[in-house]
Amino acid sequence: MVMQQALVLERRNELSLRDIDLPDVTGPGMVKIAIDTVGICGSDVHYYTHGKIGSFIVEEPMVLGHEAAGTVVEIGAGVSHLKPGDRVCMEPGIPDPQSRASRLGLYNVDPAVTFWATPPVHGVLTPQVVHPAAYTFKLPDNVSFAEGAMIEPFAVGLQAAQKARIAPGDVAVVIGAGPIGIMTALAALAGGCSTVVIADMMAEKLEIAGRYAGIVPVNIKERPLQSVVDELTHQWGADVVFEASGSAGAWKTLLSLPRPGGAVIVVGMPVEPTLIDWATASTREIRFETIFRYAHQYPRAIQMIGAGKVDLKPLISETFDFSRSIEAFQRAAEGRPTDVKLQIKLR
Amino acid sequence: MVMQQALVLERRNELSLRDIDLPDVTGPGMVKIAIDTVGICGSDVHYYTHGKIGSFIVEEPMVLGHEAAGTVVEIGAGVSHLKPGDRVCMEPGIPDPQSRASRLGLYNVDPAVTFWATPPVHGVLTPQVVHPAAYTFKLPDNVSFAEGAMIEPFAVGLQAAQKARIAPGDVAVVIGAGPIGIMTALAALAGGCSTVVIADMMAEKLEIAGRYAGIVPVNIKERPLQSVVDELTHQWGADVVFEASGSAGAWKTLLSLPRPGGAVIVVGMPVEPTLIDWATASTREIRFETIFRYAHQYPRAIQMIGAGKVDLKPLISETFDFSRSIEAFQRAAEGRPTDVKLQIKLR
Amino acid sequence: MVMQQALVLERRNELSLRDIDLPDVTGPGMVKIAIDTVGICGSDVHYYTHGKIGSFIVEEPMVLGHEAAGTVVEIGAGVSHLKPGDRVCMEPGIPDPQSRASRLGLYNVDPAVTFWATPPVHGVLTPQVVHPAAYTFKLPDNVSFAEGAMIEPFAVGLQAAQKARIAPGDVAVVIGAGPIGIMTALAALAGGCSTVVIADMMAEKLEIAGRYAGIVPVNIKERPLQSVVDELTHQWGADVVFEASGSAGAWKTLLSLPRPGGAVIVVGMPVEPTLIDWATASTREIRFETIFRYAHQYPRAIQMIGAGKVDLKPLISETFDFSRSIEAFQRAAEGRPTDVKLQIKLR
Amino acid sequence: MVMQQALVLERRNELSLRDIDLPDVTGPGMVKIAIDTVGICGSDVHYYTHGKIGSFIVEEPMVLGHEAAGTVVEIGAGVSHLKPGDRVCMEPGIPDPQSRASRLGLYNVDPAVTFWATPPVHGVLTPQVVHPAAYTFKLPDNVSFAEGAMIEPFAVGLQAAQKARIAPGDVAVVIGAGPIGIMTALAALAGGCSTVVIADMMAEKLEIAGRYAGIVPVNIKERPLQSVVDELTHQWGADVVFEASGSAGAWKTLLSLPRPGGAVIVVGMPVEPTLIDWATASTREIRFETIFRYAHQYPRAIQMIGAGKVDLKPLISETFDFSRSIEAFQRAAEGRPTDVKLQIKLR
Repeated sequence: MVMQQALVLERRNELSLRDIDLPDVTGPGMVKIAIDTVGICGSDVHYYTHGKIGSFIVEEPMVLGHEAAGTVVEIGAGVSHLKPGDRVCMEPGIPDPQSRASRLGLYNVDPAVTFWATPPVHGVLTPQVVHPAAYTFKLPDNVSFAEGAMIEPFAVGLQAAQKARIAPGDVAVVIGAGPIGIMTALAALAGGCSTVVIADMMAEKLEIAGRYAGIVPVNIKERPLQSVVDELTHQWGADVVFEASGSAGAWKTLLSLPRPGGAVIVVGMPVEPTLIDWATASTREIRFETIFRYAHQYPRAIQMIGAGKVDLKPLISETFDFSRSIEAFQRAAEGRPTDVKLQIKLR
Repeated sequence: MVMQQALVLERRNELSLRDIDLPDVTGPGMVKIAIDTVGICGSDVHYYTHGKIGSFIVEEPMVLGHEAAGTVVEIGAGVSHLKPGDRVCMEPGIPDPQSRASRLGLYNVDPAVTFWATPPVHGVLTPQVVHPAAYTFKLPDNVSFAEGAMIEPFAVGLQAAQKARIAPGDVAVVIGAGPIGIMTALAALAGGCSTVVIADMMAEKLEIAGRYAGIVPVNIKERPLQSVVDELTHQWGADVVFEASGSAGAWKTLLSLPRPGGAVIVVGMPVEPTLIDWATASTREIRFETIFRYAHQYPRAIQMIGAGKVDLKPLISETFDFSRSIEAFQRAAEGRPTDVKLQIKLR
Repeated sequence: MVMQQALVLERRNELSLRDIDLPDVTGPGMVKIAIDTVGICGSDVHYYTHGKIGSFIVEEPMVLGHEAAGTVVEIGAGVSHLKPGDRVCMEPGIPDPQSRASRLGLYNVDPAVTFWATPPVHGVLTPQVVHPAAYTFKLPDNVSFAEGAMIEPFAVGLQAAQKARIAPGDVAVVIGAGPIGIMTALAALAGGCSTVVIADMMAEKLEIAGRYAGIVPVNIKERPLQSVVDELTHQWGADVVFEASGSAGAWKTLLSLPRPGGAVIVVGMPVEPTLIDWATASTREIRFETIFRYAHQYPRAIQMIGAGKVDLKPLISETFDFSRSIEAFQRAAEGRPTDVKLQIKLR
Repeated sequence: MVMQQALVLERRNELSLRDIDLPDVTGPGMVKIAIDTVGICGSDVHYYTHGKIGSFIVEEPMVLGHEAAGTVVEIGAGVSHLKPGDRVCMEPGIPDPQSRASRLGLYNVDPAVTFWATPPVHGVLTPQVVHPAAYTFKLPDNVSFAEGAMIEPFAVGLQAAQKARIAPGDVAVVIGAGPIGIMTALAALAGGCSTVVIADMMAEKLEIAGRYAGIVPVNIKERPLQSVVDELTHQWGADVVFEASGSAGAWKTLLSLPRPGGAVIVVGMPVEPTLIDWATASTREIRFETIFRYAHQYPRAIQMIGAGKVDLKPLISETFDFSRSIEAFQRAAEGRPTDVKLQIKLR
């Protein structure tokens, strides 16, 4: 262990930028990474403002941050695909590779996963971290650290898009134009959709989403989503509906949007259980998929960004120096509709 | 049109066995069938006792019955795969073959489908009907009319089993041991499951289901379903859970039954919307599939029964002569737990 | 029937632009279309230069052309989704909607399909044709007739891309940069691939393909395809390999290109059977898919082009007036590497 | 290391039952197993009679045997799902759990896999072996060691059946009634097929396969396979064709057997590349799948056998005492058509 500076959530509503004891030994299969950029996620903010998410409760001081990119500075025994100097980004979740879920390729739903900045596990808003090489991915030269730190939230969108089993040319709807909604819309579009309708009630969010070609913003305060979908699809319905608002209200009207044989992908997590009318869903044989974080999406995301298929840079709203981390979190907690992603730069 | 005797639902709670005007012309692509056996379905009984199902309301006298087998007596122009004398069973739903859904192979979710004994369309508890040859299927010699009339409900089970995308050796749970629950269990078993746990609260129903090798009956008044699944799967969870009870209560505990990456197939239609905890579903990335009747299952069902893969005969609880049709419906309305399927024989 | 001018293949190597008797009655479910633009396909040219393709032999004079767009001028009874004045494109194949294959949604592999300009069925290089409304598709206002006439070959690419079951970000290889190879590359890219490597030996073809962002042209006379794939995928292999050259030579080295668990999609039809080393394919559990024309791709193609997801206009090399049809075919028969698509404009 | 007796292939055609140095330390994550029963596989025999398989050449003395069951006698650190006394069977292949293929769930196609009795790796015809717990599976009480040692070849059949994506009631054809052909037929049948036609030229093999209900043996010396399939499927074709003969001849006629949209699963490995007519395959859009051993099939196989879904006992032709191992191999090398599986019992 070594003392190093970190952004520490002491308890609900109390952050400090102070020294804390963190792991330092680069064991076999591990790499040490000098962190360059960390994005602030809604879950980081939620721990800050609420002290917990569901059954995960902050009981000890915890370092925040899990959307990160940096540079390899040391490699452990047996690491062959990385070397010091490599620019990388990291998956924040570490599964047991020999669990039954992991062996099936479903490592994200392995109950043994530990995940950065999820109590009691520390996050990475600190200059150096040690991480398994197997979950550390090299960035191409043309992908910046800032983009590298965006891969984590984009991977969530990709997980949703992959579960949708998009056929080329599909028409999709994304409900909710928050960061994850926009990531999902971009993933669906890059993943084969011809058109993605994105629905929200906040004009500022829709304005940002609508700057991307292929994304059709709909302000549901002004126009019913159903009528947009009906017109676009000649009354057939959307091939895929991504629910990314987590709002119980969205579930009241959502089931009439998919086409016969279409799908609903549950991306946003409603806090409370929602009422589902299975009879309505059944008359069109709607399929529902749920996602939990992501598996196998980092290499795909990196390839897509490197190839210019997706441009996430316009979604970075502002970058704060590490010394201004607390200010960055205070700003994130304001929830300005024009802030898609705030990032913290450590070097 | 021709007058012929039929079991007519005059209005809620009132049945007559009387003459009624029914179609008689065997047009192009059509066949005329002498009906031999008709099974009584829960929906027939529900129209009898309630006069409606959802938005389908019996406003004119309507002939009941849609689970039927018989003998071709006449073929229309252009019919080549059938001839008079062929023993057949029939799909009760007739879609528009040129609709977008039908062309995609999803004819069951074509909104234009007309369906026997669904207001205002007459059913087939009458000696002769005219039906499209395309939805009339030849029975092998070793499949009886009684079995032929069981293919309709078995097709529902097969639709559920196919949607489940069973991998060989899967462990399944069926919630609800009513006729459709048992059909689903048999379809899942024949469709590749190694073991199917069937859960209910009525010992009589479980006793019947449990006579089949591979079906494990569980009386949930005596033993928690979760513990059975945990033991059988070594805490991993079931590959597939078929909800066939239509009970809101079942949904309260169901989401902890599937394994990581498992599926829930919604077979029973709860009358009211049910509360779904998407957060729980997501931690295992559970997939949900809904079904609406069936498509393309008749040839599969006939092949399976003809090959001896599935034996539906033990599920025929009693057979009534056509003249005793009203009595048969009164018995069906009693809902005796030992009655899986009552049939009416017309010749 | 009515006499109208048409481009007639009298026999091998002999074309006339002359009057011929063609159907004129717009029966139930049919529409009459004033043809605007027809593209010349390799198969049209092959009938012209060889008089046959496989077992399809030109024994009577036959009108050529099957890639067409035009304007509805008359609708038959029962047609509701089209009206006179609608700008449309048409699927050239007409299946039996009640065949077993069609009902399963596989209408392209229905043995009863009749197909324009496939002996003995006439094509559409003539001012007016009668066609089933069900296979006639409305063009959006922003899609030109020239693009409408490109939808047929693009649908082949889409069929290949859909069979590939592309996951977002996949890396693909297309072998062969002829018209169908380029269509396949564009469909794969629009269908979710991050990068598509296209391989050929003709620099001119590669130059055209390489103008599209995301397509990486590789001249295999200069550089081994394997090394490109190895570098791009860090020795992992391509997710999908589309064989679109129809060349036996391509099959000699192709099996080492896909990744473990990858796929090979057979788009080009080698004239002779090719040698496949199943042992090599098996060590990576490679999946092979074959395609036959397309099914359900027209609405997808139209949606993609209308949404600006794919731009086919740069592939139209030259447009000939109807009166110069014979000249257009002579030019097509030259097979200039810079000619991707030649079109004939009828009005 | 410890000296223990083993069946050693000294070089081609020379076996000894003698002492040899083998691993003895039960390291972390490992278990030590007292071997009870080992089946003789065609590959064991091939190493014995040819000294090599493809590029795998026996250059040093090698212990044979990879189809094994036994009893855990010691567990290494961190092993929780097994304990001494557990009756188990083992997967003979050990992948790198952190390889890209393994992480995707495709551990069987991980190039780093080491596999028992594949040079230079020793097999398990010896009283005790050390093996990773993760690839060691507990047998239920009602599954004998003899059945446990059959799970390895049955897993190959299951891998083929799973790749086929059988829909309930499918009709399958298996070409070749050798041990793997029979295993595939049983897996296909248990995996959801209604009927499996198995084709061979040796009456003795067909007689054994045909004892199972649902398997239809066809002697192709007496009757063309095509006519059987045509009759059984009313000219539609088989849903799945499993090629398990490895014979080049089979490939000459195989492509006309599947239905439109059907599949061919390549189970048997032809020594030489085979000629494939892609044009024929394409007119029905046939899908081809290849398999390499198996992944994730052991738990399925054990569940199926334990549940009585599949009975492999009739396929055990004769059991030899360990002291008669050489005689057992000599008998296996005879290739008697009535010998499906010979086993060696070590205690």
